[in-house]
Amino acid sequence: MNKQTYIPLAAALLLMPTLGAAQETEFASLEQTTFIFNTLLFLIGGFLVFWMAAGFAMLEAGLVRSKNVTTQLTKNMGLFGIAAIMYWLIGYNVMYPGDGNWILQDVFGALGSKDIKTEIDAGGYSNASDFFFQLMFCATTASIVSGTLAERIKLWPFFAFVVVLTGLIYPIGASWQWGGGWLSQMGFSDFAGSTLVHAAGGFAALAGAIILGPRIGKYARDGRITPIPGSNLALATLGTFILWMGWFGFNGASQLAMGTLEDVDAVAQIFANTNMAAAAGAVAALILTQLLYGKVDLTMVLNGALAGLVSITAGPLDPTLFGALWIGAVGGVIVVFAVPMLDRFKIDDVVGAIPVHLLAGFWGTLVVPVYTADTSFVTQIIGFAAVGGFVFIVSLAAFAILKSTVGIRVSEEAEIDGLDKSELGMEAYPEFAKG
Amino acid sequence: MNKQTYIPLAAALLLMPTLGAAQETEFASLEQTTFIFNTLLFLIGGFLVFWMAAGFAMLEAGLVRSKNVTTQLTKNMGLFGIAAIMYWLIGYNVMYPGDGNWILQDVFGALGSKDIKTEIDAGGYSNASDFFFQLMFCATTASIVSGTLAERIKLWPFFAFVVVLTGLIYPIGASWQWGGGWLSQMGFSDFAGSTLVHAAGGFAALAGAIILGPRIGKYARDGRITPIPGSNLALATLGTFILWMGWFGFNGASQLAMGTLEDVDAVAQIFANTNMAAAAGAVAALILTQLLYGKVDLTMVLNGALAGLVSITAGPLDPTLFGALWIGAVGGVIVVFAVPMLDRFKIDDVVGAIPVHLLAGFWGTLVVPVYTADTSFVTQIIGFAAVGGFVFIVSLAAFAILKSTVGIRVSEEAEIDGLDKSELGMEAYPEFAKG
Amino acid sequence: MNKQTYIPLAAALLLMPTLGAAQETEFASLEQTTFIFNTLLFLIGGFLVFWMAAGFAMLEAGLVRSKNVTTQLTKNMGLFGIAAIMYWLIGYNVMYPGDGNWILQDVFGALGSKDIKTEIDAGGYSNASDFFFQLMFCATTASIVSGTLAERIKLWPFFAFVVVLTGLIYPIGASWQWGGGWLSQMGFSDFAGSTLVHAAGGFAALAGAIILGPRIGKYARDGRITPIPGSNLALATLGTFILWMGWFGFNGASQLAMGTLEDVDAVAQIFANTNMAAAAGAVAALILTQLLYGKVDLTMVLNGALAGLVSITAGPLDPTLFGALWIGAVGGVIVVFAVPMLDRFKIDDVVGAIPVHLLAGFWGTLVVPVYTADTSFVTQIIGFAAVGGFVFIVSLAAFAILKSTVGIRVSEEAEIDGLDKSELGMEAYPEFAKG
Repeated sequence: MNKQTYIPLAAALLLMPTLGAAQETEFASLEQTTFIFNTLLFLIGGFLVFWMAAGFAMLEAGLVRSKNVTTQLTKNMGLFGIAAIMYWLIGYNVMYPGDGNWILQDVFGALGSKDIKTEIDAGGYSNASDFFFQLMFCATTASIVSGTLAERIKLWPFFAFVVVLTGLIYPIGASWQWGGGWLSQMGFSDFAGSTLVHAAGGFAALAGAIILGPRIGKYARDGRITPIPGSNLALATLGTFILWMGWFGFNGASQLAMGTLEDVDAVAQIFANTNMAAAAGAVAALILTQLLYGKVDLTMVLNGALAGLVSITAGPLDPTLFGALWIGAVGGVIVVFAVPMLDRFKIDDVVGAIPVHLLAGFWGTLVVPVYTADTSFVTQIIGFAAVGGFVFIVSLAAFAILKSTVGIRVSEEAEIDGLDKSELGMEAYPEFAKG
Repeated sequence: MNKQTYIPLAAALLLMPTLGAAQETEFASLEQTTFIFNTLLFLIGGFLVFWMAAGFAMLEAGLVRSKNVTTQLTKNMGLFGIAAIMYWLIGYNVMYPGDGNWILQDVFGALGSKDIKTEIDAGGYSNASDFFFQLMFCATTASIVSGTLAERIKLWPFFAFVVVLTGLIYPIGASWQWGGGWLSQMGFSDFAGSTLVHAAGGFAALAGAIILGPRIGKYARDGRITPIPGSNLALATLGTFILWMGWFGFNGASQLAMGTLEDVDAVAQIFANTNMAAAAGAVAALILTQLLYGKVDLTMVLNGALAGLVSITAGPLDPTLFGALWIGAVGGVIVVFAVPMLDRFKIDDVVGAIPVHLLAGFWGTLVVPVYTADTSFVTQIIGFAAVGGFVFIVSLAAFAILKSTVGIRVSEEAEIDGLDKSELGMEAYPEFAKG
Repeated sequence: MNKQTYIPLAAALLLMPTLGAAQETEFASLEQTTFIFNTLLFLIGGFLVFWMAAGFAMLEAGLVRSKNVTTQLTKNMGLFGIAAIMYWLIGYNVMYPGDGNWILQDVFGALGSKDIKTEIDAGGYSNASDFFFQLMFCATTASIVSGTLAERIKLWPFFAFVVVLTGLIYPIGASWQWGGGWLSQMGFSDFAGSTLVHAAGGFAALAGAIILGPRIGKYARDGRITPIPGSNLALATLGTFILWMGWFGFNGASQLAMGTLEDVDAVAQIFANTNMAAAAGAVAALILTQLLYGKVDLTMVLNGALAGLVSITAGPLDPTLFGALWIGAVGGVIVVFAVPMLDRFKIDDVVGAIPVHLLAGFWGTLVVPVYTADTSFVTQIIGFAAVGGFVFIVSLAAFAILKSTVGIRVSEEAEIDGLDKSELGMEAYPEFAKG
């Protein structure tokens, strides 16, 4: 061997350990780990947002009178089932029109034989995980409505509205932003849905409350307002804790990816901010009800926490923790003032869903430009008004049609007896004597 | 330097940036990331299935009368504790006989000093995570039984049965399939346990219900059946939501791996299908009870959702979403028809666990070949019959032995007073007056 | 080309396929996947420990009389909100003094504009995820206190104590170990906080109970002790299941990393051990109350499970499953004997938090050296005594100051009427007649 070969051979030998190791250790492909992390985020986020359906059910069951609890539980269980089916059948395709109607193909094309769910999205996550996650947002919108309209709406007309809401109204509104529609092109910013989910649900609830009218005995002719306390505040508190927990998935997984250091750091910041906003909303309502009424009002504290959550939902990533604090606290304040305000308009919102989801949803949407670059207050207001106006008008029409055809309100006698007896013939707490 | 060395040197130099980068950036080993992902799946799945124990507790506490609630809660808390110990002491080794009795070694070999849990499985996951996950399935089987036998079985004989069920009966049945036994060799297919867990629990419950007899007052001599409503439908609904949530772990983590793109996509499809089947079961029961009885029956809706879940459990991966829908819906229909049918046979199943877990479990097992290749209806029926027959006969014997020795049923007086007073001396709701 | 170039060229060509593949497949960087896994562990652990706040709320709401339920719920919701704010404002910096006060900078430095949360920690996880996770431990400490002092402490003085506890007392004690302080340098070992969280909460509760005195009617002058049963054992059981579930995050994520095979295997072992200890504590209390009193006591079983959890928390990784079993079982035994013992000292602990968190916390801390190398019983006792003594004395002072200034106890009349009426004017179950 002469000197001339010495250098390259030495180089090759020098490289050998590294290369040998490379041949022994198989490395994980970036595409694959990213895909797994992203999909996992959707799945964890999805089961957490699913859990919010239970949270709404408990919150609402706790805030209605015991004579209407079974009905409220039935509505919550039923609306989730309907949402799951309608969003699959129509909603998902309406919301993401570019995806080529793969679900409709599934139903009408190759019944039960073609497994098109296994298509792997170019974006680096499982289609099925995305569908699972998005579905939960659709169901959340319906859960919001059921609370406001409790104690007087008929079961099946309510479900009929849920069919329209989850199959069309919510998906159309959401498509304008998340489906790449005109709002997203305009620069509207709604990270996890202060407008698209919460205000949408709130506007649908408002439309229903207007068409339906208040509960018997709530507003006397002389202007007196009779508070109708909930029957089980332990359930209501449990429901709030469940919602708070589920919201980590709601906001956190709306980052839509955690396959990079930056993405997972963003998810972590969202978790921290979401928690802070809820805490601030609760504490704000705690302090404010003490100052205003001389006594803390637990239902306001619960709604304060929820309003804090709704407030941070449009922009949970960009604010500092201090930002999340004051944004959430304002949400809590809004609720404390808005609940009696609604009563002045004789809009009977049984659980306070309109202040929490519509008004705090507006606040959350509006405040985004304070922390998020390339957003504007005007665009935020336009987006809110567009989605809100659309949902409100269509919901108003839908409720009006239902009212004028099948009727949406139970009879006066049924309402006084309670819907559990009149509509379902099944009491929630049959053994507990009424006090 | 002459030309002859030019090429190799150039090659070496050409390689330098890549190799340099490789020396700077350390890559993740595929073996390691796979191991972490798989273990994480077991852990997330495990805590979700653990959560089902709470779901059963709430469902059952809500569906018994208030005088038996404390006892039902005690049974559910106690059975989980017993299952955790028995499955560790005996069950896990019985179920996976090839694993070399590492737990028994732990107990009898080197008491408290040898940490054999750190063995790392060749399959790419932590042994401890697998144990944690599998344990939860064993406990689920016992939770199913407690509901059916509520309101009349004595506490300690029930626990004695749980010892046998979780230490031997469930593990033996499950070993035939998941332990690599004869059913798996025959081609039986039961992805997450429609037969091995749910029907097994249902058959044990059936055996117990037969030996135990119905509650006093349930079936009059003249053939009249007295419905005995549950005391707290809010709890029952909460329990159903908890079970639904936990089922994502039950079915999803039964993929047993998520370290590849294909595996995590499978987990995602299972999540979506599991949700769809539950939704369809709930909606089917909703519609069917309205049609049959003119009124929606919430407990049927809850059991419909659960039956949908059980129905998809034997094959949650292969069906399309439409497949999950109709499979789950049939589960819901089965429940609506089976609950009164059981009453005709005077089998008193307090919470409807036999229709939900045994019958929908049969349906779920039977339907697998429609979507899953290399399975046959005959083999599915054989597998179901074998496991069901085994569990039923051994459970029947165990309950008969318990009955003829220590007795399994509380006295008539105790049953009328309620087990909380007679067995435990502690009421669940001591302050609420009975109506 | 002459022979001299043959060898290096061949080597280069040989390397080509490997290198070509390397250029096609991008590999995941180890640093990045480790960062994602670690952050994800904190996030999952964090939402699970958050969930424990709901568990404490339900446990305590179930164990107080119905006339104090709203107040107890309000305390639990409020204390979490306060803890979230105080730990951010002061606590986190006090606990980790080396981190350079990044949160205070956030508040006082660059109000709402500087996003310092995005700093990425050298240790390989997102700062925000660590903050989120650690915050939950701080809140847990406060949750422990609220149970003991239930049914007689005023709302706002309680919240004032929570401010001090979560802003200073807990963080100072925890800094001695987890902030790299003198206890950690001494070799004290407290993996997830049997001492730092649970005993700390227990000592604060003890101090409060001493200053506050027992509830009216609990201890008669003639020495008779009147048991005051909880109003809703279904809620209490739910709370226990929630706490058990959350504890997987509490202990499991305290491994602080899951980016390596060894770390995730450790997390898995912790999950399995944590579950075993809880099961053993529950079963021990089940058997022991049967033997001692002839009847099982559900509240003891619940507290037995919790004591098992507290017992394993100081060292959940090193014991074998059998180790976790006996450590947890001793925890359950401690509770059964300690609850009546406290009554003999006329320390009125409404929910049994002192036996569960302080005494089982001592046991868990003490037993660590049996399985964990490089630990000593003496050091464990010193650490426990130091943290306990510090928390106890400062809490005693804080409660004494509150007592002598604003007063901490409601009036006798208010206590008899119930705090819900007197303090909040809002009943938890307004419709259920008292029996």
